[in-house]
Order: sequence, then structure tokens, then C-alpha cells
Amino acid sequence: MKRCAIGLDYGTLSVRAVLTDIFTGDIAAESVFDYPHGVMDRLPGGEQLPPGWALQHPLDYLDGLKHVIRGVMKESGASPEAVGSIGLCATSATILPVTEDLTPLCLTPAFENEPHAWMKLWKHHAAEPEADLIGQTARERGEGWLDAYGGRVSAEWAVPKILESLRHAPRVYDRAYRFLDVMDFLTCKLTGKLTASGCAMGYKAFYRNGQFPDPMFYRAVDPRLEDLTHGKMGMPVSPVGTCAGTLTAAMAAELGLEKGTPVGTPLIDGHASLPGCGVTRPGTLVIVMGTSACHLILSEKDAAIPGIQGSVKDGIMPGYYGIEAGQTCVGDLFGWAAENCLTEAYVRQARERGIDAHRLLTEKLAGYRPGKSGLIALDWFNGVRTPLMDYDLSGLILGITLSTKPEDIYLALMEANAFGTRGIVELFERAGVGVDRIVLAGGIPEKNPLVPQICADVLGRPVEKANTRRASAMGAAAAGIAAAPKKVTGCAGMADAVERLARKGTTFWPRKEHVRVYNGLYADYTALQDTFGRGGNDVMKRLSRLRRE
Amino acid sequence: MKRCAIGLDYGTLSVRAVLTDIFTGDIAAESVFDYPHGVMDRLPGGEQLPPGWALQHPLDYLDGLKHVIRGVMKESGASPEAVGSIGLCATSATILPVTEDLTPLCLTPAFENEPHAWMKLWKHHAAEPEADLIGQTARERGEGWLDAYGGRVSAEWAVPKILESLRHAPRVYDRAYRFLDVMDFLTCKLTGKLTASGCAMGYKAFYRNGQFPDPMFYRAVDPRLEDLTHGKMGMPVSPVGTCAGTLTAAMAAELGLEKGTPVGTPLIDGHASLPGCGVTRPGTLVIVMGTSACHLILSEKDAAIPGIQGSVKDGIMPGYYGIEAGQTCVGDLFGWAAENCLTEAYVRQARERGIDAHRLLTEKLAGYRPGKSGLIALDWFNGVRTPLMDYDLSGLILGITLSTKPEDIYLALMEANAFGTRGIVELFERAGVGVDRIVLAGGIPEKNPLVPQICADVLGRPVEKANTRRASAMGAAAAGIAAAPKKVTGCAGMADAVERLARKGTTFWPRKEHVRVYNGLYADYTALQDTFGRGGNDVMKRLSRLRRE
Repeated sequence: MKRCAIGLDYGTLSVRAVLTDIFTGDIAAESVFDYPHGVMDRLPGGEQLPPGWALQHPLDYLDGLKHVIRGVMKESGASPEAVGSIGLCATSATILPVTEDLTPLCLTPAFENEPHAWMKLWKHHAAEPEADLIGQTARERGEGWLDAYGGRVSAEWAVPKILESLRHAPRVYDRAYRFLDVMDFLTCKLTGKLTASGCAMGYKAFYRNGQFPDPMFYRAVDPRLEDLTHGKMGMPVSPVGTCAGTLTAAMAAELGLEKGTPVGTPLIDGHASLPGCGVTRPGTLVIVMGTSACHLILSEKDAAIPGIQGSVKDGIMPGYYGIEAGQTCVGDLFGWAAENCLTEAYVRQARERGIDAHRLLTEKLAGYRPGKSGLIALDWFNGVRTPLMDYDLSGLILGITLSTKPEDIYLALMEANAFGTRGIVELFERAGVGVDRIVLAGGIPEKNPLVPQICADVLGRPVEKANTRRASAMGAAAAGIAAAPKKVTGCAGMADAVERLARKGTTFWPRKEHVRVYNGLYADYTALQDTFGRGGNDVMKRLSRLRRE
Repeated sequence: MKRCAIGLDYGTLSVRAVLTDIFTGDIAAESVFDYPHGVMDRLPGGEQLPPGWALQHPLDYLDGLKHVIRGVMKESGASPEAVGSIGLCATSATILPVTEDLTPLCLTPAFENEPHAWMKLWKHHAAEPEADLIGQTARERGEGWLDAYGGRVSAEWAVPKILESLRHAPRVYDRAYRFLDVMDFLTCKLTGKLTASGCAMGYKAFYRNGQFPDPMFYRAVDPRLEDLTHGKMGMPVSPVGTCAGTLTAAMAAELGLEKGTPVGTPLIDGHASLPGCGVTRPGTLVIVMGTSACHLILSEKDAAIPGIQGSVKDGIMPGYYGIEAGQTCVGDLFGWAAENCLTEAYVRQARERGIDAHRLLTEKLAGYRPGKSGLIALDWFNGVRTPLMDYDLSGLILGITLSTKPEDIYLALMEANAFGTRGIVELFERAGVGVDRIVLAGGIPEKNPLVPQICADVLGRPVEKANTRRASAMGAAAAGIAAAPKKVTGCAGMADAVERLARKGTTFWPRKEHVRVYNGLYADYTALQDTFGRGGNDVMKRLSRLRRE
């Protein structure tokens, strides 16, 4: 029996590996590798990239792979034979074209100065026109799958990025053997075979219930795209929880592992948090709070919920639909207040005490009473994902007086974020997706305990803060363990692996008096949402037009 | 013929005198005296005053009188015979009880430790319960005069302050020979006779069209108040523009002036700005912008306009109704943003350059395009005076995004203030009080030229910034000149005097493209005003209750 599993979490600026004990869930070793090229604003050849572009260097990912796996092996002292599996997750829809031998096109001399040949990071935003065209065409044709993606196509998803390359650099498109999600690129490299993740394809490439959109749809978008899903994106799609392949001899040698080690079907990093928080069944909502928030829940049945990001069978845990909703800004929202709403005295106090503005504002809120500030806010500072799916909406702060202090604004934004969360929970429940437990993951609840407490008070129910900050890497590790036979790991599938790795979180209990006040304020939040988000008063649309004029 | 006139402006912290040339309007000399006791938060005997209290020392006013008059005489070198008149203005409804020989009660040994025997400054706010009682009683009895005061009684006005003394210190009330507005106290001292200003009584003591409220009304408020206006407030009321009396021999000797020098009926300082800006006829709206704003206009006829502060015949210029409206915060509004909406970098930049936040934010707005920030605000940070007369309303900022910068908020508040001003102008015009010229006075437009420019752009018409920062003192001087016979000054009444003293202001012209954008935003401001201020959504009322809970 193998004792260890490796989980890899490819983030925006670094990759992290954990080596975990399959039986106890203890993390035996961790290793991090910062990408030397980070997010590139110019090509290695020197060419400056336009605004909105965000490229990365594939060698950073491959060098990182070797560095962190060798790192955890060395730190833990584990022998290669002790490693039962590898699992990985990565940022969503980070896309690169490769040649037939899996060489990134950008690393071939003819393409090294061609921006579209490089790896487009999840937050590469230059494919807006392509996203609009794909969305518009899907709407015109009444494509049924569009509703499962909230009725809108994001420029951050896979196909707009590929279409952008086709339209602006056709020779890249022609020369590319495949366009791969980076998590698939890594899996193909590890296993030596072509395979695509059901999570990546499901949430970011319109793959639903075993099929991609009809070729006729892609032809309507652009005639050259007609055979996209059989050609440039053509690969067998593996459900999460299955084995994507096993480690090749060459990669095993490079990484210092055993040939034939099973590799799990990879996941998107946010989605990997759900199993990473120990969740295996419907009923538990995991909210990953970083700069934005991603709400993940398992469901027995498919659900058409307004403004969700995707509902994908086997997309997170085998056997269930994985439903994803979102709030467009959380850490960014609090960061806005901590950056832009300070007095001179607060700046001085923070400097003198060597603390950041978040900490200072949170301290000033010690013993606060909800409602005392008299503020209510709409947390739409980056538009709205779930439920309104409207990026022309914007933020609001109401109730300001001459006595309003920066910490009042900071609190109002934390409350507004929690009101938005409550709206999503109620939306799920109305759609028949029951929520009986809520777990917060990600950096924000970790950094500020007020965030889970306010969530509990606003939701009027206990809220758990996940125990691990390595939720994505642990979720990936679990998906890896699921790739190995039971006789090797002792685990009967992914759910079993997840339960072994699970750690108990910290529970925040709702405070009765706070719940009472927040129930009233939530009713006002909902009314404001209806007024400004559902056509009662279109002022935010007009302001959005003016801003762009 | 006399060449010179003296104008006195009693402010909150100091008194200023100007000595002006009656024929040219040139200011020959100025003198300022800071009140040694300022605004007292404890009695001279040491007793600490409760929150909301604001008392002053009558000797500061009398010492200041002597200091500044002797000051301008000395600086100008004018001989006592050259001084044709004295005029004065003071803050509104600053009230003190006096004995029969005009000694302030607080300066008699039996009362020096009695807070209610001292002078209650305009911003003494402890009489809220009395103001509520008076307003409530007036509403219940359907008192006709209440509408002319916007339907509400302010704790800052005269009668609530007197009733507060009656209820909390009946021996002060009993012992007082009269309760005087400080401007009347000074005039009585100068002239040796009992006389009350039509401006003070008209705007702050419910004196309308030659009479005070019915004694039965005061009996309903408190039986002991029944003969208030014939007893403790009983004095002949002089219209503005008339002679209140002439200088006594004793005061002439003390001040170094001629006995018999005419003293004009005094005005409230804000109201004195109207003649001080050279206005003598209906059609010109003078807006005095300080911490709050006061809108003054003359009218041939009385007007019942929602939310005005008063409409008083002969209250500002003889022969006309003087109508006063108000915005509750202007300088305070911009000050809120300049204090609470800063980044760490902005604090550093301001410090390094030795400039204040207002200047820094204004510089960052150089070349701004209206609408570009995508913000719209309601300027109700201190409640609303005209038109809604509702202090449970509060401010709103809408359209905030992650890109919103402090200067965007600062601009949005300046724009909101101008939208509020436009609302008042349109309110006047709908009520038949035509506005064909707008003059801004006070410190705010002087400090920041963006303020008058945005006003012009929002109103879509030229806006003048008054030439003089001494508008109140010059208005007072004109009221003084009007007290002297024509053969002495060459002036045929107050209008003639005002025109002689007038100075041309600076005109700010509306910019066509800005006007277009602001017309659209103003429509949105009006819609938001209706939603949140007129019952569409009562969230601000609920927040106000929560804040007080």
C-alpha cells in the first residue's frame, strides 16, 4: 500500500505542491515555486503587449513541476515507491497552442515573437469581441447550453481566447496541433497521452453531458471553427475522479518518481477547493473567497439557475453536478475601501504601528453594533455575476452622513458582500439545491475573522471556516488518489479519499441580535437590488455608458 | 456730507469691522478681534457643559466692538465726524437674557454659575426637545406661519432656546428683563433704546407681517410663555433699512465716534450678504456657501415654498420679501470627502507638497470630463433642508467601481451640491420667484474655482462669484448708511447705498458639452431624490432609526 499522494496547485504567480499522508491527511511536505516570468506584459523577445493582455511562459510551469515535486520528496524524505498518485489543479482557462509532440508553439523559433502563440492566462482580457460574438451567436441560435453558463460568454473562457488567435494570427491557429488548457497540457506531458479534463471543458469550453456544442454552431461563429472540437480541441474528455493516465518513464526520471504512478484528471483551482474542504455530497456550499468569490455546490440534478457560471456533471466530484456561482469582487471590494477610504490620521496610525489598513479598520470595528453606522451598500463594484449577470451595474453606498468614518464604509462593504452571499444561498434553495452547511475557504476569511462572523450573522446560520489554506492542493491530491486502484491506496474512489484528507474547520455562530438587525437590512439590500438591478431605475446603465463614452 | 460708513460682522469666533468709502465703496480699513472665550465648553467658573451646548461670553462682543471700531478709525485715519453711520450683522439667533439696564444676566453675581444665564450661540443644540414641542404644537393648532418656515422648528432658533431656559432654569426666566438676540443686544447698547431687528425676529422668532404668533399658541406650548412676545421678548421691531437709533454719548466716547451717529437695523450675517453682493431687487439669487449654504432672494410677493427657512417682508431689503432656502452641508460635504476618502499615496503627496487635500483632489481633477467617473451622489450628508426639510435623510454615492478614485468622489459631491442648488432654483421659479442671475458668496467658491464652474455647468447658465469676501460686513454697512438721512450720506435709502458699495464679480460661463452631460445626470439626481426622499423607498428613514437605536 502507498502512503503518500502529491497535490499540485498552479496559481497565477506560483505553483505549490503538497505531499500528504493518504491515511491521516497530514501534510508531510510543501514546496512553492514562483514563476520567473510571472504575468508577462512583454514577450521574452522584448515586444510590449497591449493593455488587457496577460501571457505566461510554459517553461515556468514545467520547471515548477520539477522543482516542487523534487522539493516535497526531499523535504518529506519519502521514497518514490511511497507515492501513490499525483493530482493537480490550475487557474481556469489558461490556454496554449502546442505542436504534435506537445511542444508549446511559442517555444518554436518561428513563433517565439508571435503573441498569440504564447500561453493566455485566465485573466487575459483581449478576447472581449470574440466572447461577445460567441455569446451573441449562441443567443441567436437559441443554443440550449448557454443557460447553464448564466446566459453569457466570458472573455476569460477557452473558446474566445482560441478564436482571438484564429482571427488575429491565423498562422498560429493553422500550425497548432491542439489548443490545450494548461492543466491538460501538464497532464498530457505527465502521461504522454492526449486527455482533457471534464472540469476544464465543462466549466470553460461548453462541454455538457458528454458533448461539445454542435459544429454548426461554431460554423455560424466563424466558418473556420466548424471542426474545432474534433480538430484543434479534439481530445477524449475524462470526468473528475478518474485516472487521466500514468507517469511516463521520462517524466518519472525527471521528477524522481516511479514510472506508472497514476495521474488524476485535473480540476480548476477554485473547484478543487470543494473536495479540498472535505465535501463529498450535496448540501454543503463551499465559498472560495479571494479577490472574487466562487460558490460551489454538488447537486443530484442539473439546475438552471440565473447567473450561475456553470452546472457540470462530474465536473467536481464524480456522480454529481457541480454548480458554480460567483460574486465578482470580495477581496477587491474590501481592498478598495482599505485603499481609498482613509483619513490622514489612519494612514499615520497604520504606519506607526506597522499594520495594514485592513487590520486597522477591523480593529476600529471592535464591538461594533450592526446598523449603528446607518450605512447600506450594494457590493457591485465589479459588476454582478450571480444572480444578475450584469457587468454594467456598479456599487452604491447609502446612508452616509458627516459622521461616517472609513471603518463604517469598510463594514458596510463586508455586510453587502454577505447580503450578496445570502442572495445566492436563497437562489440555490429556491431552485431546489438545498444548502444545509456553508464552508468558507480562500485567503479572505483566513485573514479577517470578521468576514465569516458577518456571514454567519447575515445568513442567520452557522458558517464554517475551512481548516486548510491548501484547500485547492488537497482537493487536487484527492482527485489524484481517486486515479489509483483501491488496492494501492486503500481508497474506494474520490469521496473516500476526500474524507480521509478532510480537516474540521472553525465554526462561527450567528449572534441573535445581529441576525435580527441584518434581517431588516437584507430586506433593504434586496429592494435596492431590485430597484437598480432589475429595471426599476436604470441609472447604473446610464452611468456605465457615460463612463465609456 | 459724511464720507465713511462702518460695517460690523459678528461671526462665531471673531468680529470684523470694515470702514468703507460711501461714494466709491472702497474699503479704507479693516479690523478683526478674536473672542478671547471663543465657543465655551465650560463656564468661566469651571463648570463643564453637556454635549450639544455652545455658550459665549457677552464681554467678548462688547470688547470686540470697541477694539474693531477703534481699529478701523486708527488705520484709516478718518475723523469721527467723517463717519456717517454704523451697521452690523451677527450670527443668527444667538440669544442672551439681560437685566433692565441691559446687563447680561450671566455677568451678575447671582447667575454667573447658571449655564442658562449665558449667551446661547446659534449652534447651541440642547433645545431639541423644546423645538420639537413648539413645532408639534404649531402643527396641531394649524398655525399658518409654520409653512413660511418650511413646516419645522429648528433648535437653533430663538424661542426654543428661551423655552429651554424657562424649563430648566425658571429663575433665569423670571429674573430676565428681556431675552435678546445678540444683534439687538448690541444695537440696544449702542443706541440706549430697546429695539429688535425685523431680520432676526422675522427669520428666527416667527415674526411675520407685523405680528408674532398668538399668545394662545404660546400658552399651548407652555402656560408660562403666554405673554412671551409682550414680556420677555417684547420690543418694537424695526424693518431692515431703517434707523434703529443713534449713538449714545457714553458709547460715542467709548468707541471714539460722534454722539448721534445713526445705527442701522441689524441683519443676520448670511442675510447681510445679499446687499453685500450689490443686490437690491428681485431676480438675483445669492448663495452663501460656507459649511452649509443659505440661498437668499428678494420677491415682490410672499411665497409658500416647501422647505424654505423663511419668507420675511423687509427682512433683508426694505420693500421686498426676503426668501431664505438652504442646503445643510456644502463645505462640510467637501470636507468629509477630503478627510475620509484618501489613499496613503495622496496623504503623502499632500504632505510632501505642503498642500491640503482639497487642493490635491482639485488638481487631480484638472481637465476632468463630466460623467467619466460614472458616479452620482445625493448630497444629503447632513439631512435635507430645501426642499424636503427632512433630517432623517442621508447621503448616497452610486456608480462606484473598483476603479473609483478619491477625486471621483470629491467631484461627485461637488456635482451633487450643484444639482441640489439647481433643484432650489427650479423650485423658486415654479413658485413664481424668478431667478435671472446667480451670485455665489462665502468662503467655498472663493477657495475652489471648480465650485462656481460646476454650478454654471449644472445650471446651464452663467454664475457669478461675488467680488468681496466681506459681503456680510458690507451688507451691514449698507444697512447702516440707510439709517442716515440723505443729506448726510447722499444716499436715498438702502438700495442706493448698496449700489454704491457694489463690486463686480467674476462670471463663470457654462460649458456646452458639460451642460449636456449634467442635464442627463440631473434627471437621475431628481429621480433618486424622489425615490429616497419622497417615499418611494424609505430605507434612509429605517437606517436613521437604526443609527439612533
